[in-house]
Amino acid sequence: MKQLSGLDSVFLDAEDDHQFTHVSQLLILERPSADFEPYPAWRRQLADRIHQLEPLRRRLVPVPFGLDHPYWIADPDFDLDFHVRHSAVPPPGGDAELDELIGRLVAAPMDRDHPLWVSHVIEGLDDDRFAILTMIHHSAVDGAAGAELLELMLEDTPDAGRPAEAGRWRGESPPSTTEVLARAAVNGVRRPGRGLLLAARAGQKLARATRNPAVIDLADTVRGTLRGPLGSLLNAGRSREEDDRLPRLPPLTSPPTPFNHPISRYRRFAHRSLPLADVKSVGKEVGATINDVVVALCGGGLRRWLLDRGELPDSPLTAMVPVSLRSGDEEERWTNRVSGTIAALPTDVDGPLERVRAAHEALDLAKQVFKALPGELTPEAAGLGAPLMTTAISRAVTRWSTVGPAPFNLIVSNVPGPSEPLYVGPAPMRHYVPVSAVADGVGLNVTVQSYVDQLDFGLLACAELMPDLDDLADAIIAEFGALRSAVAEASGDGA
Amino acid sequence: MKQLSGLDSVFLDAEDDHQFTHVSQLLILERPSADFEPYPAWRRQLADRIHQLEPLRRRLVPVPFGLDHPYWIADPDFDLDFHVRHSAVPPPGGDAELDELIGRLVAAPMDRDHPLWVSHVIEGLDDDRFAILTMIHHSAVDGAAGAELLELMLEDTPDAGRPAEAGRWRGESPPSTTEVLARAAVNGVRRPGRGLLLAARAGQKLARATRNPAVIDLADTVRGTLRGPLGSLLNAGRSREEDDRLPRLPPLTSPPTPFNHPISRYRRFAHRSLPLADVKSVGKEVGATINDVVVALCGGGLRRWLLDRGELPDSPLTAMVPVSLRSGDEEERWTNRVSGTIAALPTDVDGPLERVRAAHEALDLAKQVFKALPGELTPEAAGLGAPLMTTAISRAVTRWSTVGPAPFNLIVSNVPGPSEPLYVGPAPMRHYVPVSAVADGVGLNVTVQSYVDQLDFGLLACAELMPDLDDLADAIIAEFGALRSAVAEASGDGA
Repeated sequence: MKQLSGLDSVFLDAEDDHQFTHVSQLLILERPSADFEPYPAWRRQLADRIHQLEPLRRRLVPVPFGLDHPYWIADPDFDLDFHVRHSAVPPPGGDAELDELIGRLVAAPMDRDHPLWVSHVIEGLDDDRFAILTMIHHSAVDGAAGAELLELMLEDTPDAGRPAEAGRWRGESPPSTTEVLARAAVNGVRRPGRGLLLAARAGQKLARATRNPAVIDLADTVRGTLRGPLGSLLNAGRSREEDDRLPRLPPLTSPPTPFNHPISRYRRFAHRSLPLADVKSVGKEVGATINDVVVALCGGGLRRWLLDRGELPDSPLTAMVPVSLRSGDEEERWTNRVSGTIAALPTDVDGPLERVRAAHEALDLAKQVFKALPGELTPEAAGLGAPLMTTAISRAVTRWSTVGPAPFNLIVSNVPGPSEPLYVGPAPMRHYVPVSAVADGVGLNVTVQSYVDQLDFGLLACAELMPDLDDLADAIIAEFGALRSAVAEASGDGA
Repeated sequence: MKQLSGLDSVFLDAEDDHQFTHVSQLLILERPSADFEPYPAWRRQLADRIHQLEPLRRRLVPVPFGLDHPYWIADPDFDLDFHVRHSAVPPPGGDAELDELIGRLVAAPMDRDHPLWVSHVIEGLDDDRFAILTMIHHSAVDGAAGAELLELMLEDTPDAGRPAEAGRWRGESPPSTTEVLARAAVNGVRRPGRGLLLAARAGQKLARATRNPAVIDLADTVRGTLRGPLGSLLNAGRSREEDDRLPRLPPLTSPPTPFNHPISRYRRFAHRSLPLADVKSVGKEVGATINDVVVALCGGGLRRWLLDRGELPDSPLTAMVPVSLRSGDEEERWTNRVSGTIAALPTDVDGPLERVRAAHEALDLAKQVFKALPGELTPEAAGLGAPLMTTAISRAVTRWSTVGPAPFNLIVSNVPGPSEPLYVGPAPMRHYVPVSAVADGVGLNVTVQSYVDQLDFGLLACAELMPDLDDLADAIIAEFGALRSAVAEASGDGA
């Protein structure tokens, strides 16, 4: 039995009937032969590895009256068949049909009476492909731990076979109510407002750090709603000195866009891929990292999409860029350790080369801000990125996004993935597409991941705010074409 | 703008996070050629007929604070693409894969911000088949009206083409809050307890009529929980005289079974078919109606299933048998007009011929009880079957089913369907399988429907209470084999 951290449980508290805080991975694999059956192969592979996959076997035990964060226990009733499901896309089985199914599958909350994950084996795809969508709740793993977990689920050689220690694990009996209440007393965590307090303070710190008037307003709004002991505690934590040792930065506002509104319960998903070598070589030509190029492509793609709709704001859009806080020395391997910073996207910059330069500068600035943040904002103290997306602050955004700009326009995340090929039985994985989450006020998320020789883009949006998400995905790819042409022209060996 | 009847809105009030009150129809069709595309064909057919399909175009407008039943308006934002979806089953695409997908698709509530229906075109089936699952909320249509509606959606000749008047309909603007509140005042319906009152009184009447001690206990429990003006009203309605003019019947208890418990949010579905001519000829041999045979098959199938599990009770299981109250002269065509009666199933009777005789007698008795019910129990007064399945009474069952027997064990419904073939474009429909609903305390529903030369059985159950629903479906079919052999033997021309 283990207790959830403050940040882990933030992801549970934030969930409601239209905001879902699970994250997913879409694997696209090659069918090694016509008679290969992906569903039994994947089910067997999971059964053989489940002893290593602790987050997939544990389920929640809530503490009565929410007096403390919930606990995880190794589920004594664990049933793999509940979690592994067999699905299919209709003909013609192209990427459009796959993306539509993904949007539908991720648009529902998970069942908290079971371990918080589901894996769909998807057949019916053209070109001898099949896919696996694995959804895991963000309270169980963060993005980096999720990637690690997925690598444990997959094999690094074809037909790796069954590990010797397969099947060696045991369930735990759920604790009695008396037991969890006694632990709550021992922990001294008897203030239900603790998580909220930490989230609100983290929000204030980030606001002051970025000098983003929207975030400052927001943090003040949240703090203003706190009354009694909680409000006093929060205000007691403030000091002018702390304000002044942070670097002064220009104000950064987030202009209104079609996707910065309260979201519906429906999702649209779109995925695209670029050859990793091409992205690297373009980056090298202009002295930019892959991250710079990804942010520039998002900025350029959004610029095109907004221009086409006559909705391009004069000021740049802003993106929340998640930052992993993992050092590699974590004692609790699977706990959330994620934070975030805010960067301007070059949606206001003309020319693809100019956009890469602007992206590089914006990310550099965002990194400096992040480093300057007080060290007390550890993951256990509830992090930054997560609370901004979720809980009280997210709810404030909901009310507030109808009357003013959002604290940031979208989430852009670029995660390095495995560089060596992975397998399900004999079937090689070709793409490893991230599927993240959206929230009220922030109805668009672009997450990008590298895998062997591919850079896979996963775009998720509220289906009612962005029914035409596919156009944005196309615009991002078109932006890469424009950037490559501009680089070739600049270096004199192209048209 | 039209207001929902009391019974229509009972089906809305009864819905929660694990009880869903939509009913569905599973059509299994034959692909007329290899290049036939079912999704565009079905979408086009619906677009051409939507002007006739009023219940599919209207959406709810609730009255603030639940002061009155909600209204229907012709949805001004109607979007056919929201409702018609394209899905597929994974290989091998047999009935098992189809049933699993159906169980998954029906296990979610509908979105009340849109007209309350969804239609899934399902590909990937073997034997050149495809399927269409159409889910409609029970507040929009009852079973009989749903069948009528479906016949309007389908064509009675292949490739019937577009009707001349296609597309002639208009949406309505949602009424203002002031308008619906003003109407509530005019209607004089300002007692939020009205629907509950009617449901509770109907429950008492049925209880006294059947002399079922479980139902009487239940009705008393519900009445006992009503306090203040509502309780007084209900008690004022009682009179000894009314009790005494109803026929005295033997007590009918419902024994405990594995499926009479609170249900989960998951569903298992199983469908089977019998040749209608065979069922008719067996019935004719023994002087029984199709309805008698269906009830006998359910009784015999359940007997086998319960015996195999060592769970067969000594006393017979009881079934709620819905009764349509339609006269054909209804002014409001789509309003719910359904009631129900309770019949013993011959689960305690040995021998298939004996079970048909017992079923015939039980249904005869149930019909007499139904006719003897006071005429004031009109559909507008909230009916009988529906409130027993739902609302306050259903919630009482939930609490109470853990300590005692349910008011009935399952729902068994046999509905005559179309006798002439129906089409989607050029594609002929082969089966027309009903998919009904389950509720807390009543985790099993067997609904049977005839279509041309088939008798299609649709079994729905809570997936956690009856993961082995397929065994019951097989047992029902095996029972028909046993009955046919017994009939052949009795008439001297069989083994």
